Amino acid sequence: MTAPGKTRGRFISLEGGEGAGKSTQLRALAAALRARGLDVVETREPGGSEGAEAIRALLLTGGADRWSPRAEALLFAAARADHVEKTIRPALERGAWVLSDRFLDSSRAYQGMGALTDADILALHRIGSDGFLPDRTLFLTLPEEEASARARSRDGDAADRIGGRDRDFHLAVSTAFHRFAAQEPTRFLAVDASGEAGAVTARLIEAVRDLLP
Amino acid sequence: MTAPGKTRGRFISLEGGEGAGKSTQLRALAAALRARGLDVVETREPGGSEGAEAIRALLLTGGADRWSPRAEALLFAAARADHVEKTIRPALERGAWVLSDRFLDSSRAYQGMGALTDADILALHRIGSDGFLPDRTLFLTLPEEEASARARSRDGDAADRIGGRDRDFHLAVSTAFHRFAAQEPTRFLAVDASGEAGAVTARLIEAVRDLLP
Ligand SMILES: Nc1ncnc2c1ncn2[C@@H]1O[C@H](COP(=O)(O)OP(=O)(O)O)[C@@H](O)[C@H]1O
Ligand SMILES: Nc1ncnc2c1ncn2[C@@H]1O[C@H](COP(=O)(O)OP(=O)(O)O)[C@@H](O)[C@H]1O
Ligand SMILES: [Mg+2]
Ligand SMILES: [Mg+2]
Repeated sequence: MTAPGKTRGRFISLEGGEGAGKSTQLRALAAALRARGLDVVETREPGGSEGAEAIRALLLTGGADRWSPRAEALLFAAARADHVEKTIRPALERGAWVLSDRFLDSSRAYQGMGALTDADILALHRIGSDGFLPDRTLFLTLPEEEASARARSRDGDAADRIGGRDRDFHLAVSTAFHRFAAQEPTRFLAVDASGEAGAVTARLIEAVRDLLP
Repeated sequence: MTAPGKTRGRFISLEGGEGAGKSTQLRALAAALRARGLDVVETREPGGSEGAEAIRALLLTGGADRWSPRAEALLFAAARADHVEKTIRPALERGAWVLSDRFLDSSRAYQGMGALTDADILALHRIGSDGFLPDRTLFLTLPEEEASARARSRDGDAADRIGGRDRDFHLAVSTAFHRFAAQEPTRFLAVDASGEAGAVTARLIEAVRDLLP
């Protein structure tokens, strides 16, 4: 329930392949929204709550075949259920905006293409989180070459179980995201993520302007 | 695939409330089947494979409200998917009998009674494990007083997140198991677990006799 006198906040997810600029733009968009006086919570998936971070540790460590695609999809859905219940909903109810670096659509794009169907991933989300959706999903689009150049130049966190996949895999992910944008054109907006960061941030602010108070 | 020249083994789950004698009888039934020359794998849920045991550690530690019922159901289904794929199916394919201390029906009885329906739990099992079912499920029935007396007299493992519940809860679990027995009378057999252990084991052997080679 939203506190008396408070408007419910907005929930925005950022999606896109590795190196598209999600983490960079999440910080920039959060700063821009705070500059407009909004209370902003920055979060990420898998993770974003104590239980979900514990599940994240299971998901991102071990060999590429540690989890079958089915077990992996269930673990992502479990982490998301905890994230929604413990972090996202409470923040929205106190009036904050929540920006999440990946959410449901990453599971649809990454886990819903092989052993599991998109309908399976959506069923897991219904069971886990009552089908809770972002008010807006910003899909950062970037030509594959630019994305891999950015991902390579980045230090640290790229070489986990999810990141180290091949070019075909990343193209399939991108195709899936474009399909979601076509299916839900109001919630899911493709935003050009090429060019310098400030210009991308300006495009993202445009893409949420109708949600601003 | 079953190895050439081998018959697929049988998968038997033991179900029932805390203190009914599942763990005791699983060992005794395994010994009796081995005495008949069968290769027998003893396993348990949650757990039974490396990944599932890691999920078990998440499920059984922390306060009673660490996980919502929804997140909990997803974690059990993830652990079960790993258990089926990594332990149970390979053992059956090489011809072994697999005895599991709890399986799907515990999730149906424990998680499928509140926020989630039985249909939800079965959907998770379809997505996680292709709906894989035991050849026989042995439901150990024991009057609530006898079960709590046994559980109290046992040292050690009772006081985890799942065990420490009240009488109404345990009665609801028992009612659910009786409903499953009525729904699937061939797979799911109620077996009287009262009296001395050897007599119970004899009843359990009777209850799987039609499956013996
Ligand atoms: N607009 C941009 N132009 C050039 N480099 C960028 C831009 N946005 C992000 N980067 C850099 O690209 C790399 C990947 O960005 P990051 O935000 O981590 O992407 P993601 O979170 O989508 O994987 C980082 O090193 C980051 O500093
Ligand atoms: N037939 C029996 N008669 C008396 N005590 C028993 C019998 N079977 C098991 N017990 C004891 O009851 C306790 C609970 O048995 P256990 O096999 O651990 O049950 P569960 O695994 O179903 O919780 C243990 O201390 C065990 O030694
Ligand atoms: Mg990132
Ligand atoms: Mg036991």
